Amino acid sequence: MARAVIGVDLGGTNLRTALLGPEGILFDKKKEDSHAAGGYEQVIRKLVDSINRQRKNAEQRGLAVAAVGVGAPGVIHAHRGIVVKSPNFPDWNNLPLKEELERPLGIPVFVENDANAAALGEQWLGAAKGINSMILLTLGTGVGGGIVLDGRIWQGADGMAGEVGHMTIFPEGRQCGCGNRGCLEMYASSRGIVLTYQERLAETGAASAGLTSEQIYERARSGDTVACDVMSRMGRSLGIGIANLINIFNPEMIVIGGGVKDAWQLFIAAAREEIAKRAFAFPAERAQIVPSALGDDAGMIGAAAIALQRTAQA
Amino acid sequence: MARAVIGVDLGGTNLRTALLGPEGILFDKKKEDSHAAGGYEQVIRKLVDSINRQRKNAEQRGLAVAAVGVGAPGVIHAHRGIVVKSPNFPDWNNLPLKEELERPLGIPVFVENDANAAALGEQWLGAAKGINSMILLTLGTGVGGGIVLDGRIWQGADGMAGEVGHMTIFPEGRQCGCGNRGCLEMYASSRGIVLTYQERLAETGAASAGLTSEQIYERARSGDTVACDVMSRMGRSLGIGIANLINIFNPEMIVIGGGVKDAWQLFIAAAREEIAKRAFAFPAERAQIVPSALGDDAGMIGAAAIALQRTAQA
Repeated sequence: MARAVIGVDLGGTNLRTALLGPEGILFDKKKEDSHAAGGYEQVIRKLVDSINRQRKNAEQRGLAVAAVGVGAPGVIHAHRGIVVKSPNFPDWNNLPLKEELERPLGIPVFVENDANAAALGEQWLGAAKGINSMILLTLGTGVGGGIVLDGRIWQGADGMAGEVGHMTIFPEGRQCGCGNRGCLEMYASSRGIVLTYQERLAETGAASAGLTSEQIYERARSGDTVACDVMSRMGRSLGIGIANLINIFNPEMIVIGGGVKDAWQLFIAAAREEIAKRAFAFPAERAQIVPSALGDDAGMIGAAAIALQRTAQA
Repeated sequence: MARAVIGVDLGGTNLRTALLGPEGILFDKKKEDSHAAGGYEQVIRKLVDSINRQRKNAEQRGLAVAAVGVGAPGVIHAHRGIVVKSPNFPDWNNLPLKEELERPLGIPVFVENDANAAALGEQWLGAAKGINSMILLTLGTGVGGGIVLDGRIWQGADGMAGEVGHMTIFPEGRQCGCGNRGCLEMYASSRGIVLTYQERLAETGAASAGLTSEQIYERARSGDTVACDVMSRMGRSLGIGIANLINIFNPEMIVIGGGVKDAWQLFIAAAREEIAKRAFAFPAERAQIVPSALGDDAGMIGAAAIALQRTAQA
């Protein structure tokens, strides 16, 4: 039987599974409810059921599933397959997810941070296809990141690398949930955009409008000067972070994903300007900065890539 | 004949050469004048002569020199062996150093940034021996850096990675020679320490004392409050940079070298405090922060390690 792998993206809301062949052929993908509120036993049961359905699916196509990759949110001890803690699954404390899945499934399972998985997904089949070294910045409510070097995720000593959203951009800046002040995440995420907008309104003496990030993009698109300024401030903050990554990594590509990516035209010029001012000229000019291509599929595709890479190693 | 390699550290003042065996045995080392002021032809001639003397030295010991590694200061295109520009050698513009040495020597030559070479030296035989992932910060007049991942220098797409000294620490901070503002280099180097001291004196209305960094360490050691404060500010700036590196890389070790390392006790507590405040707890606790062990030998030893790795690959 031909070999296949299953990639899983476990989110707080959605559970995405994909069945892929080694050459990157996507045989099937499914999106379901992840039942995060039901507690970890229910989530595990849900995961096992969904993975087993994809295995049956594989069998019917004459494919044997060699391994499963799972991208999960939060602090992940990737080498040991443990979810240390996860904002989306409050009762998961040092949960040995790899073991909990391998026992009922009977095939190898590899667990990775979801942003790292998404980075590898983009590198395998998305915006960074054919690129050796790239960094993904996922601009959502927070800022996630994943680093791919020589075609593999740089996991770090404990599988906790890639937290580029928690680079300090303004040392005396906004308090971040991680304990630090002035993290990139507090300025380049949708939440950061909303905060900057509120601050700017407060400065001008206007009442807070309570807008969402999408509404701020709308206003900026229709020429509102405060909203435009907020988006260019966001771009400059992002540019500081990207300039640092360029000087540190000399990467071929920076891929920007997440919901904020939809406001690309509103921040990218300011970001590029800041990068040109701050990073070394040669690596700055050669680093392509592009939007992500796989959208919400990046995580499960990257998780499948991890399963492939690890079983090829063994 | 047994195999050996030659490692070269080419500085603006000194030219260091070492003859090493594959197991890291240091057969011989020499320190000479690099004749930087004489123009590139003289420097090349000097390099060839010194390397040939080490080859004769090798022959007499029954060793065959397989390759030469050279660490050079400045912007290096490592993959192509080109010195793009070098502050120490003003007439070197896109100098093809690899070719210029391979032609007369007739054996493979590999060129690397000197700070990258020093990082690999510390990882091979120094403070990070047995460590897989480490970052070297060289605190001298400027701040150099080198990143070793899985036992190899992370060179980046063009061999220009590792410029951790040019991470932005204070976005509106001091103008750096690289064009950026607020680089780590402007705060954690000996020059940065002198500048902070001058600023602090100016704030207190005192006349500028024109002290060197060493004199500032002296004053701090004897309890001078301004000097102590300057050193702890330097430590906090360094801590911001290291916290970023920990969140990005989750490394096993951070090694601190360069002349400023001698003031270790004056800055390390403030640095550790800042790291604990800013970096993720688990990777921060596990990352060892240690002084370099090889001193000025790190560069030539790392250059030898590069020669070994590259010829083992071929």
